[in-house]
Amino acid sequence: MIRELAVVGVGLLGGSVAKAARAGALARRIVGIGRDAARLQPAVDDGTLDAATTDLDAGVRQADFVLLSAPVLAIEGLLERVWRAAADGAVITDVGSTKGNVVRAAERLAASRPLAFVGSHPLAGSEQSGYRVARVDLFRGATVVVTPTDRTELRAVKAATEFWEALGARVSTLDPETHDRSVAAISHLPHLIACALVDGAARVDPAALELAARGFKDTTRIAAGDPDMWTEIFLANRTALSASVDAFGKALADLQRAIAVGDAATLRAVLARIKALREGLR
Amino acid sequence: MIRELAVVGVGLLGGSVAKAARAGALARRIVGIGRDAARLQPAVDDGTLDAATTDLDAGVRQADFVLLSAPVLAIEGLLERVWRAAADGAVITDVGSTKGNVVRAAERLAASRPLAFVGSHPLAGSEQSGYRVARVDLFRGATVVVTPTDRTELRAVKAATEFWEALGARVSTLDPETHDRSVAAISHLPHLIACALVDGAARVDPAALELAARGFKDTTRIAAGDPDMWTEIFLANRTALSASVDAFGKALADLQRAIAVGDAATLRAVLARIKALREGLR
Repeated sequence: MIRELAVVGVGLLGGSVAKAARAGALARRIVGIGRDAARLQPAVDDGTLDAATTDLDAGVRQADFVLLSAPVLAIEGLLERVWRAAADGAVITDVGSTKGNVVRAAERLAASRPLAFVGSHPLAGSEQSGYRVARVDLFRGATVVVTPTDRTELRAVKAATEFWEALGARVSTLDPETHDRSVAAISHLPHLIACALVDGAARVDPAALELAARGFKDTTRIAAGDPDMWTEIFLANRTALSASVDAFGKALADLQRAIAVGDAATLRAVLARIKALREGLR
Repeated sequence: MIRELAVVGVGLLGGSVAKAARAGALARRIVGIGRDAARLQPAVDDGTLDAATTDLDAGVRQADFVLLSAPVLAIEGLLERVWRAAADGAVITDVGSTKGNVVRAAERLAASRPLAFVGSHPLAGSEQSGYRVARVDLFRGATVVVTPTDRTELRAVKAATEFWEALGARVSTLDPETHDRSVAAISHLPHLIACALVDGAARVDPAALELAARGFKDTTRIAAGDPDMWTEIFLANRTALSASVDAFGKALADLQRAIAVGDAATLRAVLARIKALREGLR
């Protein structure tokens, strides 16, 4: 049982963590920290938070579990401040979609003060954002990747894993680099591609977008994601993303080649192989 | 009211047309035509079809409205046979996802025998196929594009439009070339891209696919589509598809450039513009 849970950033993810922790009675006290008092108030009013503050130092000082929920480059800055303010025994984790940059920042800080940090990435969310779309069941059945390195304190891994499992998630453990390469392929690249599809269709003919049926809407739903959040993700994970774009480009070129030469047999075989891969995901 | 409706190909689309026509009492008699008698039988057993036959000539001979539902290159071949067998007054349409090739084939045939053909493309469907997934409400609220040219008989346009509207669809009228260019951008390219995404992710790391969250599944759902059907669509519409791939490639290159140089301001502005385009589709 957590004595005091500090949630830094009470939007879709942070708010859903607070709601689920409250519903599951995982923490005796839950404190929300944000930059805008008015935006924190609804979570106090509905009983999700015991207290809210815009003072990061004061907000995390008493916490034994600190969760950072912010765009991935902002998390790097938050870590520095939390590192100064948090109690010695506190466990710290985050919900950032990239882990290499966050874990490296924490390990730089750990050189001066040992604190129990481990990176987390819940593969849950929505193209919407803000506390008003937070859901008590957002993590139920979701995968959360926890990303220890050989320098991570084991009690941080244990506490974070137990926390996410108590919220109903399945926890996978990956090193930060494998995580970043994997999410580049299955999350960041698809997002980038969805954006390019919408933009490309508008370039071909803005009127074409009005014909869009379910397939196009499904394929491009994520292109309505938060521009600030995705700007930081793309920049933080640009190396792995670039490798994924290359692999995608080669797969696309293979398909294009078969189409250009009218090679129906090859095309059919490639599409059948891809269909089997995709059906394996269900 | 249609006296006799002949549905050639009783799968997802043809079967849904027959079910909806039956439910709406749009035809006095509905005949299903297919290559495999056993696969037609369920539609006879459940009362959707009055009769089923594997003999195309016999099946269409009495019909005053003929609907062709088959992969897009196969429709070209079916047209030739239907053209010989159909009654003089029959109206003929199809449900193919490409229209240039189908309409050109019909206009070549019309040079020797005038028959009332107009192309149709219902923007409805699923990554699944077969009569077992046919739905009486598949076209309710869907868009159907009808594609006359200056050589199309007006009574064909009128009959097809009224037919689709009676099935609950909204009808848009486009010339075949505009149609093909538009669906390349909003349907065929997204399908091709979804296939390349699945293939690319598997090339980066097959284990990465196991992490796939909702975003990836949404983006790539259509990659589980029928390989035969999509092979024909890609080949039939390769010219427009190639132009769409180019527009997509330019949009992707713009995004990649901003990421590579770390230009957060440009990236954020482009993503915000795309988000607004995508939200306009809801």
